[in-house]
Amino acid sequence: MDFAPDETTREVTGRVRDFLADDVLPAEPVLAAQLAATPDDWSFRPVVRHLQATARERGLWNLFGGLTNLQYAPVAELTGYSPRLAPVAMNCAAPDTGNMELLAHFATPEQRERWLDPLLDGAQRSAFCMTEPGVASSDATNIATRIVREGDEYVITGRKWFATGAMNPDCGLLVVMGKTDPDAPRHRQQSMVLVPRDTPGVTVLRGLTVLGYDDRDHGGHAEIVFDDVRVPATALLGGEGDGFAMAQARLGPGRIHHCMRALGTAERALDLVRERAAERVAFGRPLADQGVVREWAATSRIEIESLRLLVLKTAWLMDTVGNKAAMTEIQAIKIAVPRAVGQILDRAVQVFGAAGVSGDHPLAELLAGVRTLRLADGPDEVHLASLGRAELRRRAPYLARPSATPSAPSTVEGDPT
Amino acid sequence: MDFAPDETTREVTGRVRDFLADDVLPAEPVLAAQLAATPDDWSFRPVVRHLQATARERGLWNLFGGLTNLQYAPVAELTGYSPRLAPVAMNCAAPDTGNMELLAHFATPEQRERWLDPLLDGAQRSAFCMTEPGVASSDATNIATRIVREGDEYVITGRKWFATGAMNPDCGLLVVMGKTDPDAPRHRQQSMVLVPRDTPGVTVLRGLTVLGYDDRDHGGHAEIVFDDVRVPATALLGGEGDGFAMAQARLGPGRIHHCMRALGTAERALDLVRERAAERVAFGRPLADQGVVREWAATSRIEIESLRLLVLKTAWLMDTVGNKAAMTEIQAIKIAVPRAVGQILDRAVQVFGAAGVSGDHPLAELLAGVRTLRLADGPDEVHLASLGRAELRRRAPYLARPSATPSAPSTVEGDPT
Amino acid sequence: MDFAPDETTREVTGRVRDFLADDVLPAEPVLAAQLAATPDDWSFRPVVRHLQATARERGLWNLFGGLTNLQYAPVAELTGYSPRLAPVAMNCAAPDTGNMELLAHFATPEQRERWLDPLLDGAQRSAFCMTEPGVASSDATNIATRIVREGDEYVITGRKWFATGAMNPDCGLLVVMGKTDPDAPRHRQQSMVLVPRDTPGVTVLRGLTVLGYDDRDHGGHAEIVFDDVRVPATALLGGEGDGFAMAQARLGPGRIHHCMRALGTAERALDLVRERAAERVAFGRPLADQGVVREWAATSRIEIESLRLLVLKTAWLMDTVGNKAAMTEIQAIKIAVPRAVGQILDRAVQVFGAAGVSGDHPLAELLAGVRTLRLADGPDEVHLASLGRAELRRRAPYLARPSATPSAPSTVEGDPT
Amino acid sequence: MDFAPDETTREVTGRVRDFLADDVLPAEPVLAAQLAATPDDWSFRPVVRHLQATARERGLWNLFGGLTNLQYAPVAELTGYSPRLAPVAMNCAAPDTGNMELLAHFATPEQRERWLDPLLDGAQRSAFCMTEPGVASSDATNIATRIVREGDEYVITGRKWFATGAMNPDCGLLVVMGKTDPDAPRHRQQSMVLVPRDTPGVTVLRGLTVLGYDDRDHGGHAEIVFDDVRVPATALLGGEGDGFAMAQARLGPGRIHHCMRALGTAERALDLVRERAAERVAFGRPLADQGVVREWAATSRIEIESLRLLVLKTAWLMDTVGNKAAMTEIQAIKIAVPRAVGQILDRAVQVFGAAGVSGDHPLAELLAGVRTLRLADGPDEVHLASLGRAELRRRAPYLARPSATPSAPSTVEGDPT
Repeated sequence: MDFAPDETTREVTGRVRDFLADDVLPAEPVLAAQLAATPDDWSFRPVVRHLQATARERGLWNLFGGLTNLQYAPVAELTGYSPRLAPVAMNCAAPDTGNMELLAHFATPEQRERWLDPLLDGAQRSAFCMTEPGVASSDATNIATRIVREGDEYVITGRKWFATGAMNPDCGLLVVMGKTDPDAPRHRQQSMVLVPRDTPGVTVLRGLTVLGYDDRDHGGHAEIVFDDVRVPATALLGGEGDGFAMAQARLGPGRIHHCMRALGTAERALDLVRERAAERVAFGRPLADQGVVREWAATSRIEIESLRLLVLKTAWLMDTVGNKAAMTEIQAIKIAVPRAVGQILDRAVQVFGAAGVSGDHPLAELLAGVRTLRLADGPDEVHLASLGRAELRRRAPYLARPSATPSAPSTVEGDPT
Repeated sequence: MDFAPDETTREVTGRVRDFLADDVLPAEPVLAAQLAATPDDWSFRPVVRHLQATARERGLWNLFGGLTNLQYAPVAELTGYSPRLAPVAMNCAAPDTGNMELLAHFATPEQRERWLDPLLDGAQRSAFCMTEPGVASSDATNIATRIVREGDEYVITGRKWFATGAMNPDCGLLVVMGKTDPDAPRHRQQSMVLVPRDTPGVTVLRGLTVLGYDDRDHGGHAEIVFDDVRVPATALLGGEGDGFAMAQARLGPGRIHHCMRALGTAERALDLVRERAAERVAFGRPLADQGVVREWAATSRIEIESLRLLVLKTAWLMDTVGNKAAMTEIQAIKIAVPRAVGQILDRAVQVFGAAGVSGDHPLAELLAGVRTLRLADGPDEVHLASLGRAELRRRAPYLARPSATPSAPSTVEGDPT
Repeated sequence: MDFAPDETTREVTGRVRDFLADDVLPAEPVLAAQLAATPDDWSFRPVVRHLQATARERGLWNLFGGLTNLQYAPVAELTGYSPRLAPVAMNCAAPDTGNMELLAHFATPEQRERWLDPLLDGAQRSAFCMTEPGVASSDATNIATRIVREGDEYVITGRKWFATGAMNPDCGLLVVMGKTDPDAPRHRQQSMVLVPRDTPGVTVLRGLTVLGYDDRDHGGHAEIVFDDVRVPATALLGGEGDGFAMAQARLGPGRIHHCMRALGTAERALDLVRERAAERVAFGRPLADQGVVREWAATSRIEIESLRLLVLKTAWLMDTVGNKAAMTEIQAIKIAVPRAVGQILDRAVQVFGAAGVSGDHPLAELLAGVRTLRLADGPDEVHLASLGRAELRRRAPYLARPSATPSAPSTVEGDPT
Repeated sequence: MDFAPDETTREVTGRVRDFLADDVLPAEPVLAAQLAATPDDWSFRPVVRHLQATARERGLWNLFGGLTNLQYAPVAELTGYSPRLAPVAMNCAAPDTGNMELLAHFATPEQRERWLDPLLDGAQRSAFCMTEPGVASSDATNIATRIVREGDEYVITGRKWFATGAMNPDCGLLVVMGKTDPDAPRHRQQSMVLVPRDTPGVTVLRGLTVLGYDDRDHGGHAEIVFDDVRVPATALLGGEGDGFAMAQARLGPGRIHHCMRALGTAERALDLVRERAAERVAFGRPLADQGVVREWAATSRIEIESLRLLVLKTAWLMDTVGNKAAMTEIQAIKIAVPRAVGQILDRAVQVFGAAGVSGDHPLAELLAGVRTLRLADGPDEVHLASLGRAELRRRAPYLARPSATPSAPSTVEGDPT
């Protein structure tokens, strides 16, 4: 066991750190100004384009591809320090990374050429259409969207929402999850198709708000109606009935990324708290000398350190035994990290007082983003139930488990029955 | 001891309940549509004006005035069920109620005629300018705004923010807290002046967002610069040095109102959860049959019932022994209610999944509103420290305290040193 | 609504307060010395007998009988300030009070004469035999003890444990819950019989420890085997099949008493903390000046005040609409009070450091006692599930509920399915 | 970074695991029987002696010595699965390990020969006399025990308590912390002396209980009076004024051991819960199918996995950069692990119902043991304050910290001012 990062990690994170300090943080107020100047626009603002060019020059483009999960994790963490700008600047933002991984693993050469290459190049964006307004989508058997084979075509009918990024005019691809066979076994009913956003029958209705934010700087969260949408049979990703398994495969690394970014966000909050607590004085003493602020800082530090290690171990398991064998750990971090970081941000807001909830400081927006993670890919509680069921059904007691193996049995995710 | 509400309370709350069911709830989507149609407007929308007229007809105007605190508390709770519409419809919304009470208690006859009457009539709105961007304002000795006597005038210089309602073009009055004598004892340095919003030197800079919301339907939250603002000496409210005491007097009932409304908001969340949990099915069972949802519902119910009683007792103490003797209880509810209701709303959001954070359901906005209460009038932690200090300095042990008296000694609020 | 206690309450609690200060608290070290001197004895020590005589003289004997629940509640709270001595001194200790109430409500004149009178007189003690080692007894359908009618007799076979008080040689009566008809509807299977402790076939096996304590000063917690125990048919309490309903009726007031005593215990802890925090100095300041101790004191005070009101309201509901209609509130306090008081005691232990866990201070023993309440009469979680189910099934939304009625529908307790 | 244990760890933990399964667990009921048979004895029971012989044969004696901290940590965790027997069987129990490390680092050859060798051999036990009844000992400047040089002797006067193990007749050595120079800088006032337990003037007063347990199987917790106790000057450990630094050095590894053992205890609780939840049925379903039990199991698993990694990283830091540089992490685990494991045990008790608090199952005793860890070596809150202060004073913001270095600055422990 060795907790030192390898040379590649040290080298890459060093460069990412410099990029953040030199380019990204100074760009934050620029983005705010550009957003204020163009309120009705859902596309990337010029400052994002500029940062993307800089990231390419610095060799920080598409890093999620060439590194192991364990090496990439600290990179993702760093990007969470400035989560509106750094991930997209480095072409490492959700949902594109997940979609690119899907395509890299399951797409045909023709599909890869048409969709993956422009995504890797940043020439296009994509959205993932899974959540539906009418049902509890965390249970995949509830999905109501139908994908029906008719001759050489698939016909798609349904309504999706919270399709992140789909308001962006650059978004060309919708990856759509629906049912091809409602009578198949429950995890073989679903399939995915690749739908060009401009296909007839696709209506991007509106951008939804998330806790008051429309996230228009990175394409918002769209509600989309699919009304008799026809795509050629070659638009099927993987095979019929593979949808659930591919969604699971997609979500694993996605959760690692979300969790690592959230930890970077927590570090940002702590840096902000440290500055504020040193400079603000109340009742005769700086906030930094007051018991409750100290207790918060300590608690936050402990949570970050312990959860970072759990995320890193999860990444290591994914690299060494595979995403499926790491499913328990993936669930664990999916539950634990957003909860803890939400608390860290909440406490930071209290330190900032009214400024903390205002739009003048990043905390309010960061809080909304992390709060949403407790629902993204299914509410925590679904994962807690699934993880708990697996733990309670575990066969080997503690003394029968060798130390080297993963800590808990893998589970079929999202299915706590 | 008797937990049954009196006849007046039963009668008035019955009518308020009808008003909510018949008029206010149906008006919620109307407000949403009117807001969407006029995005740049900070004034009341027509639907609010219409509801105000209905409330007058129904005899539900200015109820905070004619009832005891104990009778008014359940009314305030009911208005929290639809917090954007019901309080303002009944002319019982913050900050106007607090300002009206200030004027009723401390204003000269001339001041009352000029400012109180139009407020009671709903012809005008007002704002309370206390919080400052540059200092930790929960410590009143930090206030940097100066109010300097020069001849027959007071000259005001400073910067305030989070002046709720001040973006509303109908807002005519700014109640401004500042220091008249920085060398006086710490709670005698502050005074209040009544400043017409159109006085030269007053610049209403901008409306701030609060957790992503600008609250433009009820006048937003303004940042205001006071640059050499001159008002006649008769604009002083109360005496020089009375500012801190008047602020305390104002905040007591204000907290009761905030807390009661928050409990009504919690009941709204529970009603929403009940409907959702009955109709949504996941993993083969309605959410209502799932352990964690039951546990949440039970926990929420317990919190609401116990805290409602504490708020009611606080109201009773204010009525029977006065605001000052009830200060400990006022602090207690100020701390406990927003925390609990925030948790209740947070759990409700989890039940709703993505819909819960969207703008389509009221939960996201309610959550932001209640979250802000943990900071309004000073962060919880200041009050916890103050309450704890008082508890630890209490002289009489438990056995020496007769049951009938308030539970804890009154404290000088906001001052935990 | 009126939060002032009535004249009777003020008068009685005043006398109880005096009794505690004058007689009970000084007797605590005496009890400790007498216990240390007679380690193998399970009966009342002389100091208890002496206090009982004093309580009779002071007119404080059997107070639970002549007062309303609302009047008795503050008395019970006071006795919780010294929970090993005050309740038993005033003949108001569990399980005797519950058994006496059972007998008062359901016993025949002959049963009352034989069992109730000596209990009221303090000449005898009793135990309640419900919990079984072999099954989850919170589900009454699990009860394995059989009570079989044979001619003029009932034959009892089974094993019970945690029969509090049954090790006391003065304990003459065992109230035994068992099944007379396993095929009846689930809440009609159970009956109760009154079994003299010296009946052949009754074997009091041993005294159990509870979190390390054997509670030998008040008769411990016994494991008892019933092996072909025969009692005359007249020993049946109530009718066959009434056992579940009688147990529910018994538990309602019992929970009020437990909860009120627990609040008195919390006040004791706060008094202890106050003294300690004033006198101990660490890192240059008394503990009372340290942020975390203040925060704890404040939080504890808020919890005590809000939960006390909920218990009092529950008592008032029991007096005005009956135990059954108050069942929701009874469940609520059963869940909430032991949790909160456990936390209050836990924080008090931290203030005391090592002394807090030692036998030299009362905190360790108080903590164990309150911890057990989270399991007594079924674990919290059973009640949470039941309460949550009722809340989620409630028909009327908030606006359809008049303020004067109980807050939630009554539930069939202990049955969350 | 590599999360796989090395070959040595795998090999050793495999053997320890076998020892636990083959020898230690079967010995648990034997110990209980032997303790019941000899209630007044404070020495090791025969079963412990027998296990010690077995451990020697299996090469599992004094493992804490020959392994790195990182290798030893999983061994300590395993011993926590049966914490009354496994550590002492392998001569790896507190306080002896800490005392042996003290002697190994700071003793003269003569001191080592006299004291260390018999401890390593298990021929003798030792106690550490630090905590005092009269002061808040977490602040070392409060220590009242005096160690005064008079000629060739040191004269010790003071009162200590919670000297774990000192009731054991085999305990020969008392390591006593006291002040040699009250006027020195605050962390140079203290020194340690090695005092034979049979020195005239040493009075071992009594064994204290800890949450109801006297822990007589491993020597209890003694209160000891030192009244004009004279030892030769050669009994000084290290130099005068080194006491505080040596105590800190001793506590670092001690905390790792405590925390790892606590995690093994948590695994024991989870194993017990798993069995119980599978076999107990309530309301028609096994406990394992009930939502709250699943949620608990999942939460417990997440806490164990994340905190285990933090403890392991701390061990790695101690091995690679030293105890002092790892002080922040040592504080972090000292705070976090006992809290989490306490919660895990508390939830396990709820699953077990009344059995969980009884002496028939190990949970009650395990709960008491872990609860005490929140006070041992100073209450959590002292460490939280110290850790928080360090975090808030940290100079480098996140982006200036290379990934490979420890996460936080080291702090002077136990001193949050």
